[in-house]
Amino acid sequence: MTINAAFYRGNKTFVVEKTEAQAPGAGEVAVRVAYCGICGTDMHVFHGNMDARVGHNRIVGHEMSGVIETLGDGVDGLKVGQKVVVRPLDPDLECPASKAGYPHISHNLKFLGLDTDGAMQEIWTVPAHTIHVLPDDMRMDHAALIEPVAVACHDVRLSELQPGEDVVVIGGGPIGILCAMVARDAGGNVVLSEVNEARLAIAEKLGFDTVNPAKEDLKAVIEARTGGKGADVVFEVSGSQPGVDAMTAVAATRARIVMVAIHAQKPTIDLFQFFWRELKLIGARVYEPEDYEKAIEIVKNGGVDADTVITDVSPLADIQKAFEELDSSPTALKSLIKVGDV
Amino acid sequence: MTINAAFYRGNKTFVVEKTEAQAPGAGEVAVRVAYCGICGTDMHVFHGNMDARVGHNRIVGHEMSGVIETLGDGVDGLKVGQKVVVRPLDPDLECPASKAGYPHISHNLKFLGLDTDGAMQEIWTVPAHTIHVLPDDMRMDHAALIEPVAVACHDVRLSELQPGEDVVVIGGGPIGILCAMVARDAGGNVVLSEVNEARLAIAEKLGFDTVNPAKEDLKAVIEARTGGKGADVVFEVSGSQPGVDAMTAVAATRARIVMVAIHAQKPTIDLFQFFWRELKLIGARVYEPEDYEKAIEIVKNGGVDADTVITDVSPLADIQKAFEELDSSPTALKSLIKVGDV
Repeated sequence: MTINAAFYRGNKTFVVEKTEAQAPGAGEVAVRVAYCGICGTDMHVFHGNMDARVGHNRIVGHEMSGVIETLGDGVDGLKVGQKVVVRPLDPDLECPASKAGYPHISHNLKFLGLDTDGAMQEIWTVPAHTIHVLPDDMRMDHAALIEPVAVACHDVRLSELQPGEDVVVIGGGPIGILCAMVARDAGGNVVLSEVNEARLAIAEKLGFDTVNPAKEDLKAVIEARTGGKGADVVFEVSGSQPGVDAMTAVAATRARIVMVAIHAQKPTIDLFQFFWRELKLIGARVYEPEDYEKAIEIVKNGGVDADTVITDVSPLADIQKAFEELDSSPTALKSLIKVGDV
Repeated sequence: MTINAAFYRGNKTFVVEKTEAQAPGAGEVAVRVAYCGICGTDMHVFHGNMDARVGHNRIVGHEMSGVIETLGDGVDGLKVGQKVVVRPLDPDLECPASKAGYPHISHNLKFLGLDTDGAMQEIWTVPAHTIHVLPDDMRMDHAALIEPVAVACHDVRLSELQPGEDVVVIGGGPIGILCAMVARDAGGNVVLSEVNEARLAIAEKLGFDTVNPAKEDLKAVIEARTGGKGADVVFEVSGSQPGVDAMTAVAATRARIVMVAIHAQKPTIDLFQFFWRELKLIGARVYEPEDYEKAIEIVKNGGVDADTVITDVSPLADIQKAFEELDSSPTALKSLIKVGDV
């Protein structure tokens, strides 16, 4: 079957071309893609930062929703026509991490849509174990948020957040906003810290108390709100040195700080505070199956305000423009590509 | 009652003088001190680094053993003549940390022997809530190790170490050696990393596998021992930048890294590894009552080789010489002061 697909060709360029859909092999499922969100990682690809990994003929995309088109041999428990999302992880089950029970961060994990072709094509063929079935009445555009919401669900689950606890989210990009929403859904009393005024405006529209740490003393604000206690849970989503400084400054005794951001540089860290207040730092990466199920539940129940988070939708033919606009927009949060009619 | 006491008078000087023993007030207990170990913190006092906190007329010491001499009014459950140790923490029970269940690290914690006079005197009067009773047959010199062993018990408990797990202890000073012993007692498969050859020799005498990371590639050694998995639990006890670099390098996926050391400087840290392998960093400070009970049990059962750890014993009259020798000795591990005849 001939389909449309968007190929990353290097040099900040996507090209939409006809290609042959990959027929599902044994244990695989072909999914007709409805929507696919543009992830921060996809933006890194666009900028050429991941050329060594993805090459110059890659179909990216993993934040998707779709409908099952065809089942390969030996696939049980799924049906053609079901609304689905894909958990885009293909682990190496023989590595020590998988054997210890953590295949989602296995040593030689393949990430679908980076290490293999992804969802910016009308038919995406994936291993059946990556499929999660959606409720029949879920909107397909909203469902494209499930992958990033699952990241936030994983972060919040690893934080062991309890209802009524004080939460600070450092960084108000898409993942920070989703962490804030999922933490609020779990009963957290959330403050979002962000320096970008456009993002602060979105966070306030979503009902969050916010602090711009360039203008206000974040530590003092949190201490005043918590009677000198500090935040029980902190999400570091900024990936910045000021964020790493703030995460220990606002933390209560025995606080859990979740490291969501990717710190490519090695920042300095106030390890003394870890000792002094018995803080915990918890690294969190991608998701496990239960995080996907939780994300489906939250998107279905409106715990994530999908219509506010989705700031742009473009057809696949306009993918180049969508990346360029997202790259330069101060107000965009989540930009979706409508890959095909489903 | 007139007793002998050692006063820190600044300028690397201890002076032993007669003084009046403090009679126990309501809720207090007077303890006749047998032995008192010299802690790294006491050495900081000796070097003048803590003059602002301790002043120039302080009796230091908190790693002690003794026998109850007198009970103040309203003290129940204790008897004159009992062998005891003191858990030298006097918390502020009204602060948020205490209210959250962590009085051992309360915001305004008083540490006995630093913020108040300590155990380098023949009679030490302390709040009754700090007392732990010892088995009748425990040796008083061995019992002086219970305080630092309780530190190690706290570190190992917070690590959630399971029998059979691979452990790396980074730093082979007294606390590192004790962490290694308590981790081994808990069933850990321990490797100790240390650059000081004299300390390595002691660790080997104690039966530990050791690595000198100045001579061998610690990460490669641990990977080879664990089939590429890495260490499940890491104790960072070195307080050094190379130690902070090593703690992430040797860690397995989802490893727990316990921050035991006091990092006065802010080191750089490989936060990417926390994200990538979902590592956990756990700050650990002093101890809780159950750690003291565990330490008493381990010292009693020989899980800590007290005779090897205690490398010197000096009478109170020689405290000045004991500090000077410990300061310059490459082979000393734990130096005790025999404070009085008990």
